Amino acid sequence: MSLSAMSKPILYSYWRSSCSWRVRIALNLKEIPYDIKPISLIKSGGEQHCNEYREVNPMEQVPALQIDGHTLIESLSIMYYLEETRPQRPLMPQDVLKRAKVREICEVVASGVQPLQNLIVLIHVGEEKKKEWAQHWITRGFRAIEKLLSTSAGKFCVGDEITLADCCLVPQVFNARRFHVDLRPYPIILRIDRELEGHPAFRAAHPSNQPDCPPEAAK
Amino acid sequence: MSLSAMSKPILYSYWRSSCSWRVRIALNLKEIPYDIKPISLIKSGGEQHCNEYREVNPMEQVPALQIDGHTLIESLSIMYYLEETRPQRPLMPQDVLKRAKVREICEVVASGVQPLQNLIVLIHVGEEKKKEWAQHWITRGFRAIEKLLSTSAGKFCVGDEITLADCCLVPQVFNARRFHVDLRPYPIILRIDRELEGHPAFRAAHPSNQPDCPPEAAK
Repeated sequence: MSLSAMSKPILYSYWRSSCSWRVRIALNLKEIPYDIKPISLIKSGGEQHCNEYREVNPMEQVPALQIDGHTLIESLSIMYYLEETRPQRPLMPQDVLKRAKVREICEVVASGVQPLQNLIVLIHVGEEKKKEWAQHWITRGFRAIEKLLSTSAGKFCVGDEITLADCCLVPQVFNARRFHVDLRPYPIILRIDRELEGHPAFRAAHPSNQPDCPPEAAK
Repeated sequence: MSLSAMSKPILYSYWRSSCSWRVRIALNLKEIPYDIKPISLIKSGGEQHCNEYREVNPMEQVPALQIDGHTLIESLSIMYYLEETRPQRPLMPQDVLKRAKVREICEVVASGVQPLQNLIVLIHVGEEKKKEWAQHWITRGFRAIEKLLSTSAGKFCVGDEITLADCCLVPQVFNARRFHVDLRPYPIILRIDRELEGHPAFRAAHPSNQPDCPPEAAK
């Protein structure tokens, strides 16, 4: 293995990016040491659009992970790679049906909710309509997730072990609060979120504990 | 196994839905016989919103797959389930890095492009702006995919075997054409699309060959 392949993974991350946050949780749960390279999504029109970063991630978004001598993009793809290469502390169940249930929740968040309320889309929607727009899509997704959880959840999203579904759900709940979504209709989501709030791996991954979190936003 | 678990899978599908189409390709490639239950996304304000279908898929969208006595939603989750339970004609490489590359392309399509140009979002964007909106997000995604393919592609998206990445890419190219996206800057995407155009599994999954395709849209 080359020197670069053995060095510590580098996560390109933005403190408040929910997609970066998912990967931070997974890295923490698996106790994989990593360095963070902050990419500001707001400074100078967004550092993710600069030429240098475009070479890292052609989608011009965070996260990206340099690991094992490779650069990986897309949060779910990164998390599955970690799962397949670092089997310690599994984040996917063994049972095929439960695996499908984990992925359903991951996909509802990652393709059904987050893309529709992320910063770049809200800029296009415009200041005036953005809160209503974000609330609409988050509410639609949370209604579905609550229904899915009603048959899959134990202590966490799928059964009693933390899975990738939980890594996706918790940052999305944070976003829901940012957009003042009424969360009372989703008691299972709220219970799981509360359950994980104090977990060290989740706490260390929280936006307020990131090196690039501005002082006024830190807890 | 119960009787329902042994019966033929039922795919809830809409002829022109690119997410349904992905799953149709995967089912065809794996030679899994299935029945289609058409759900019209336009009739009576969208059959996906009726109470009966909401019980099938709480996200109120297609596809959904009834298989092995279970109901699965989210196209990528369904395809990974098929891959894990029907190992014939694998649609994922064995190599972990190549697997990550397949998933990257799947996720760029499934979370970076498709959600932003699907019917339900375009209704919100409005008739006047919808073409420009769809073109913007498809172009952004295709620029990234072309770059990813420049290092991953062989005959197909990742190497010389058809993978889930190809199942995601082909329907998205069709959507790009619907919205009159200029595809000339993406020669690798175009080459792979042409390569797969005549493949029996892809052809049978094409919108124009679906039972619910209106006669005026059929080839």
